Amino acid sequence: MKDFCVADLNATVSLNGFPCKPVAEVTSDDFFFDGLSKEGNTDNPFGFAVAQGNVLSFPGLNTLGISMNRVDLAPRGINAPHSHPRATESIVVIKGKVLVGFVSTSNVYFYKVLTVGQMFVIPRGLIHFQYNVGHSKAILLTAFNSQLPGAVIVSRTLFASNPPIPNQILTKTFRVDDDVINSIKSKFA
Amino acid sequence: MKDFCVADLNATVSLNGFPCKPVAEVTSDDFFFDGLSKEGNTDNPFGFAVAQGNVLSFPGLNTLGISMNRVDLAPRGINAPHSHPRATESIVVIKGKVLVGFVSTSNVYFYKVLTVGQMFVIPRGLIHFQYNVGHSKAILLTAFNSQLPGAVIVSRTLFASNPPIPNQILTKTFRVDDDVINSIKSKFA
Amino acid sequence: MKDFCVADLNATVSLNGFPCKPVAEVTSDDFFFDGLSKEGNTDNPFGFAVAQGNVLSFPGLNTLGISMNRVDLAPRGINAPHSHPRATESIVVIKGKVLVGFVSTSNVYFYKVLTVGQMFVIPRGLIHFQYNVGHSKAILLTAFNSQLPGAVIVSRTLFASNPPIPNQILTKTFRVDDDVINSIKSKFA
Amino acid sequence: MKDFCVADLNATVSLNGFPCKPVAEVTSDDFFFDGLSKEGNTDNPFGFAVAQGNVLSFPGLNTLGISMNRVDLAPRGINAPHSHPRATESIVVIKGKVLVGFVSTSNVYFYKVLTVGQMFVIPRGLIHFQYNVGHSKAILLTAFNSQLPGAVIVSRTLFASNPPIPNQILTKTFRVDDDVINSIKSKFA
Amino acid sequence: MKDFCVADLNATVSLNGFPCKPVAEVTSDDFFFDGLSKEGNTDNPFGFAVAQGNVLSFPGLNTLGISMNRVDLAPRGINAPHSHPRATESIVVIKGKVLVGFVSTSNVYFYKVLTVGQMFVIPRGLIHFQYNVGHSKAILLTAFNSQLPGAVIVSRTLFASNPPIPNQILTKTFRVDDDVINSIKSKFA
Amino acid sequence: MKDFCVADLNATVSLNGFPCKPVAEVTSDDFFFDGLSKEGNTDNPFGFAVAQGNVLSFPGLNTLGISMNRVDLAPRGINAPHSHPRATESIVVIKGKVLVGFVSTSNVYFYKVLTVGQMFVIPRGLIHFQYNVGHSKAILLTAFNSQLPGAVIVSRTLFASNPPIPNQILTKTFRVDDDVINSIKSKFA
Repeated sequence: MKDFCVADLNATVSLNGFPCKPVAEVTSDDFFFDGLSKEGNTDNPFGFAVAQGNVLSFPGLNTLGISMNRVDLAPRGINAPHSHPRATESIVVIKGKVLVGFVSTSNVYFYKVLTVGQMFVIPRGLIHFQYNVGHSKAILLTAFNSQLPGAVIVSRTLFASNPPIPNQILTKTFRVDDDVINSIKSKFA
Repeated sequence: MKDFCVADLNATVSLNGFPCKPVAEVTSDDFFFDGLSKEGNTDNPFGFAVAQGNVLSFPGLNTLGISMNRVDLAPRGINAPHSHPRATESIVVIKGKVLVGFVSTSNVYFYKVLTVGQMFVIPRGLIHFQYNVGHSKAILLTAFNSQLPGAVIVSRTLFASNPPIPNQILTKTFRVDDDVINSIKSKFA
Repeated sequence: MKDFCVADLNATVSLNGFPCKPVAEVTSDDFFFDGLSKEGNTDNPFGFAVAQGNVLSFPGLNTLGISMNRVDLAPRGINAPHSHPRATESIVVIKGKVLVGFVSTSNVYFYKVLTVGQMFVIPRGLIHFQYNVGHSKAILLTAFNSQLPGAVIVSRTLFASNPPIPNQILTKTFRVDDDVINSIKSKFA
Repeated sequence: MKDFCVADLNATVSLNGFPCKPVAEVTSDDFFFDGLSKEGNTDNPFGFAVAQGNVLSFPGLNTLGISMNRVDLAPRGINAPHSHPRATESIVVIKGKVLVGFVSTSNVYFYKVLTVGQMFVIPRGLIHFQYNVGHSKAILLTAFNSQLPGAVIVSRTLFASNPPIPNQILTKTFRVDDDVINSIKSKFA
Repeated sequence: MKDFCVADLNATVSLNGFPCKPVAEVTSDDFFFDGLSKEGNTDNPFGFAVAQGNVLSFPGLNTLGISMNRVDLAPRGINAPHSHPRATESIVVIKGKVLVGFVSTSNVYFYKVLTVGQMFVIPRGLIHFQYNVGHSKAILLTAFNSQLPGAVIVSRTLFASNPPIPNQILTKTFRVDDDVINSIKSKFA
Repeated sequence: MKDFCVADLNATVSLNGFPCKPVAEVTSDDFFFDGLSKEGNTDNPFGFAVAQGNVLSFPGLNTLGISMNRVDLAPRGINAPHSHPRATESIVVIKGKVLVGFVSTSNVYFYKVLTVGQMFVIPRGLIHFQYNVGHSKAILLTAFNSQLPGAVIVSRTLFASNPPIPNQILTKTFRVDDDVINSIKSKFA
């Protein structure tokens, strides 16, 4: 309702969205974010790193309905299947060769291998992933039509929540026995 | 923008939402739906049945931003983990004793065992499930703030899409080997 | 913008919507509501009772855009003509036999007698009512696509507001004399 | 999503909202409306006339989310209690002296006598009226944040719908007998 | 989400939108605004005055999504080219003869000379102006579908911002030399 | 309301938004766009080129509320002052060194020189520009929270519309004489 409302992340009142920093204290730096310029550390089992330019790291995005992430993927690195409960995502490859895919609610898998400068779109709320199919590091820029899109990472949600989802739910869900569930859970502990 | 816009599901033009049935042909029956009154058939591996009162089955809901489902669960039946990309869900138990749970994007698992008349809410886009923990059949009514909330069923999305998601994505995601993935895929074939 | 924002109904700052309870204090109980499970007292001139599961009684609904009510109607009991300024309503009969009706802005009266499990939808903002046409008590569950739909009850609005609407407005509106207006007002005093 | 979408009111496809006139055929006249400049005929029992500048009369408003009406009131003329299901209304008096009032969902009656140039606002969906308390004709301009706000006129809705609402509903609602209902209905026949 | 939320302009917490005045302190005067009834002072180089009935001057509009302005124009007076970043505008001439025009994103100039009672609509975000082409003073009422539409006045934005936009940007933009830019800037100093 | 609605740009019915391509004909290519990968031709007076990935060039974005552009700027090249009537914009520099700036409705000029990987946000509807302050070519990726944000380019809007805005409007606006206006108009002819 105002031009902007730079988030006051330290406010004592907690809102859905954030209160605004007083206008008189807003400077050009509030609309600037340098968190996407550095290489991410992909030295982990997924070969994956993400830097998030959302309202929590970039308070100037508050109320503006947009955010952007940088994703780094080592060769064979994956941004594992996840969904964003509050945003559509568009993806542009900055470096490398990346398989991107999503599955519709009609259960159709749509996918594409993207090279530098190519764009792909993931409709809001659908499960999708990105996978580096090239031989060198890949970098992606992703944009969201929400300043805090959220991320529901399937594996973490089901196998590493706190407290854990009971095994009987998961065995029934995937039609496997406890051993399989326990084995997966142990990897995400 | 109008009072209502009963969907013309047979229209030759395909929209996001549906064109409206001519107002002069709209009758009281267009605002009525009898698809939630019958018992669902839960004779399947999940002990689960759902009847959906959304715009596809109940065209009068077009543009109105609401829909309702009936879920039947046999004892130990499950409405397996899924999310709705376009809606919050509220749940009321009509019969039986049901465990409902969801996981937030901060990875916290919230859950409750509900008995008749009790209500629970699932914030939009989050993965959740319902599980019959009682000794007899359970019935739930669920309401959504969308006339077509969609459903992303995790197991089906990852293990039974068409075409299939490549194994290398899934083994990397869950940190298991091909055998586990193939075994799960075979159950959903 | 967040997954959820459980209302802090005691906050000193008053918002349109409510500030959020601190996330660290949120528990599963915040997403649970037990106010719809008890029978309502219909021992009044309208043979009517309503239990409201909206953000004021169920703070977890804050920002989530959904709410549900339970309506109890004695035989010949009525949920008198009213409208919801901020929501569409869907209705499912849990028990009994109920006439539901609404009038469009083109002045067409749409209606239906519903039995158990049947569903009807009331487009946003239109005047509607529910009337128990069966011989025993009726119970309805209603869902709204707002966490605080509000209710404009026609009779109460026009004849029992505080302060009262002047008689000259009401006699002109209904084209009756003061006696009729005074008589109706006395019933709602 | 486009700059504008002038309604094609003769389109064969019926939408919620209207299809757009082809851009190449759009002229300045499509954004112009002359229907508010003429005096309305208030020679009727309510001493009331309204000219509506909404999408049905002014197709250029399609998708733009705004509309305006002109209301003419003879002395003691009334724009009887009504609500707009899809809009807030603001009112400015152009001529005369007018009592405007609305009732909140908490049943509080808010009102004011306005003279030329004064403004009043009616929150969305609430029942309100305008009444000429001056000795000469009054003119109002009203603005709405919808291109088709709709109007639910309480008296017409309850006593003159097609088909009629059964008497038993109305006697129970207003706690009067059939004679009163029939008498009011006869005035609106 | 509530019927209304009268702005507390003195609140210590700054929001996008304003916190609400406590409901118990809200009176009819909160929905009333008298700032549009007085003649504006057009004794300036533009022959222009505006009185704004938005949430900053009329706190009752908070959250209601509507506002209205009064524009006074001396003969040959102009409401110079500007856009509203958050609203569509509708215009009605109350007195005089006024040229109104806007340019679409396809660069088409739409315009009309309006006389008393005539209406014109400016789609959201487009640059438009009003110019008194009559021989006497003109008065306009304008309505917006936002309680704080904002105004981006092109000349002031480009030539009188604080700090100033560097000349090299402006010479390149308008393809003129520094003298022209400095000359215009000096007029707006 | 559906997962997606790939635009049928050749539809005979014109909507605000586009009708959907039949779901059965949708393929992965519908979610893919290769128009941002090629270098733009900046051999023009502004040293500027833009490639737009919006719904008109990338029909899969229809209804999804997001789009992205690529901007190429020669040294001293400018993306001249403009606004987007329907979107916030976020900017990331892919190559080079770029001054980005916008002016708020309070007339404050906010700006920053960005280097590779740095991000800046432009609140919806505000006038802004990008200017290559480096010694080599610059490339920007911009994201919008609309599938068709539109662009109001100030110079073109005021000095090159079709038909032209009359000189008397422009001389009054910028407080210059006809010669200046004619001179600028001649550059944009």
